Amino acid sequence: MPDRIYNFSAGPATLPYSVLQQTAKDVVNFQDSGMGIVEISHRSPWFAAVIAEAESLLRTLLAIPDNYKVLFLQGGASSQFFMVPMNLLSPGKKAAYLNTGVWSKKAIAEARLFGEVVVPYSSEAAGFKRVPTPDEYQVDPEAEYLYFVSNNTIYGTQYQEMPTAPMPLVADMSSDFLSRPVDVARFGLIFAGAQKNLGPAGVTVVIIREDLLDRAPATVPTMLRYKTHAEKGSMFNTPPCFAVYMVREVLKWLKALGGVQAMREINEGKAGLLYQAIDKTPFYRGHAEVGSRSRMNVTFNLPTAELEKKFALEAANAGMAGLKGHSSVGGCRASIYNAMPREGVEQLARFMRDFAARNAAV
Amino acid sequence: MPDRIYNFSAGPATLPYSVLQQTAKDVVNFQDSGMGIVEISHRSPWFAAVIAEAESLLRTLLAIPDNYKVLFLQGGASSQFFMVPMNLLSPGKKAAYLNTGVWSKKAIAEARLFGEVVVPYSSEAAGFKRVPTPDEYQVDPEAEYLYFVSNNTIYGTQYQEMPTAPMPLVADMSSDFLSRPVDVARFGLIFAGAQKNLGPAGVTVVIIREDLLDRAPATVPTMLRYKTHAEKGSMFNTPPCFAVYMVREVLKWLKALGGVQAMREINEGKAGLLYQAIDKTPFYRGHAEVGSRSRMNVTFNLPTAELEKKFALEAANAGMAGLKGHSSVGGCRASIYNAMPREGVEQLARFMRDFAARNAAV
Repeated sequence: MPDRIYNFSAGPATLPYSVLQQTAKDVVNFQDSGMGIVEISHRSPWFAAVIAEAESLLRTLLAIPDNYKVLFLQGGASSQFFMVPMNLLSPGKKAAYLNTGVWSKKAIAEARLFGEVVVPYSSEAAGFKRVPTPDEYQVDPEAEYLYFVSNNTIYGTQYQEMPTAPMPLVADMSSDFLSRPVDVARFGLIFAGAQKNLGPAGVTVVIIREDLLDRAPATVPTMLRYKTHAEKGSMFNTPPCFAVYMVREVLKWLKALGGVQAMREINEGKAGLLYQAIDKTPFYRGHAEVGSRSRMNVTFNLPTAELEKKFALEAANAGMAGLKGHSSVGGCRASIYNAMPREGVEQLARFMRDFAARNAAV
Repeated sequence: MPDRIYNFSAGPATLPYSVLQQTAKDVVNFQDSGMGIVEISHRSPWFAAVIAEAESLLRTLLAIPDNYKVLFLQGGASSQFFMVPMNLLSPGKKAAYLNTGVWSKKAIAEARLFGEVVVPYSSEAAGFKRVPTPDEYQVDPEAEYLYFVSNNTIYGTQYQEMPTAPMPLVADMSSDFLSRPVDVARFGLIFAGAQKNLGPAGVTVVIIREDLLDRAPATVPTMLRYKTHAEKGSMFNTPPCFAVYMVREVLKWLKALGGVQAMREINEGKAGLLYQAIDKTPFYRGHAEVGSRSRMNVTFNLPTAELEKKFALEAANAGMAGLKGHSSVGGCRASIYNAMPREGVEQLARFMRDFAARNAAV
């Protein structure tokens, strides 16, 4: 293999090469301390500066209002599936969930352990090929929050217009966090596992409006209360220091590149190249409905499963890995998160045209 | 600072230098894949081999019986404080806890959310300067498990003789895991946060006897059940891949060095050097009772708080960092985990003798 390939995996996913190179230095000797970043006490001034800068960069990049806390937690997005209702769904109350794929279904199942769940919209019967527009559902006004998944990695769908509701919005943005601007003030809580756009697996960012911190019942264990971590600046216990460090490096990279405004344009450009390649020939069929297409995960099918297998294999041999679709839907998937260079997408688009020409019904 | 200093921090702590150097390579390009270890899919053959080898090495090093599962979880030891009673303490039943410091106290507080807790022994009134011998307490036979902390980082105490009880033992071994042989078959559950002897912060190892996996009530969220992770080989959701990778590297290092038998001798030798330096002059006073002294954290006082401050500062300037004691007990503390080279301990012992000679009442 060459030193560097294009990695189209859905997550853990490609990260900026310059960040990897800096990490390689810092893992052995961080800021001339004579210690690696993985060895440094989380109570040291070195690490205090790392986590403070990570938070500060996030606040700047997303223009997070002052009445929101930023938390760095462990346990992945999957832990948020239960932490959200455990903290926000008061006993005897209900919550509303938009069901647009496997990850919202899992979140719904966990929420049902804590209270009533209403589902004002589901695209399950339609194979999760779409996400709704706001006029397609009505939220029970008694619901304490409206939960949705902003981007669905498996199906390649993404809200281009965010849901609206009179109650706090809760969003799982794991797979498109920082890929575009977001009006944080419209949300009660946003969470994102790091391993798509933000850093390595092992840390989850939670952005929570302060007034929601006090809702958890007294029976909730200390570590599972958002308030515990909010009050201690995510340092109630030892945080996943290395992952937080890498998040900081990725955020520095994103800021230097122009932030989320610039990133949205870059991402729309990259996704456009692949959707053009799909739409240009009947050889490829996009999985998601056109209006719901994701800028992060481009899902498509070829005429046969055999050709799909051949496609992923030939692409991998040409230095483009991870193009096999998720086992639950099959087909192919190109995950093109923030750190995927445009050159990688251009190479894939060329490969797609070439592969279609070579393999279209002969 | 020189490229490498001696880091006596209590955790995150020093790691083997050879492991850091290997990590620096793998973080950019893992096994010639053209991708860094932080970028590789957890479902890839590369990572499957990493986590399988980490588990296999652990099983070999500790001779873990086949009827035990090995899990790699997130959330730190602090999450085990509630996961243990949430999974093992049946409603209406009781659990017994030996109280030997801050970490057992925190675990007791979380367990009380789930059932009755009995405390057959506490050294709190004695300033947590000791751990008990088995004849010093009697465990309520109705307790479902007996919980203890094998090594107490803050006070520098450690069980040299493990507790015995007719019910399953549950041990927090975060700060002396793999520092010596352990008869796993005597335990129901062992857990250890990685950031002392095992790797970077961000992964916690849980070793659990299989028959205990079925105890959790149906109300426990999916991610908080040991069984969920046991059934999926710690891959129910995305694991903290980088931390698991580093654990594997540290375990390879430990195995090559002779395993936990050899490590026990090395650790006893290192600790002996420091306790000799303490006992040789009244200038230093060991914090822990002699029979309870830890081989991992050597805690001691100097004649005055001013001298303690001067000691830590001069040592840091001489390339020995992290010697300030925990804020709750003051004094000095040298954490000498597996990866602390004997040379570092020898240098510290020389410094202690020299510092005493220069600063003893003149």
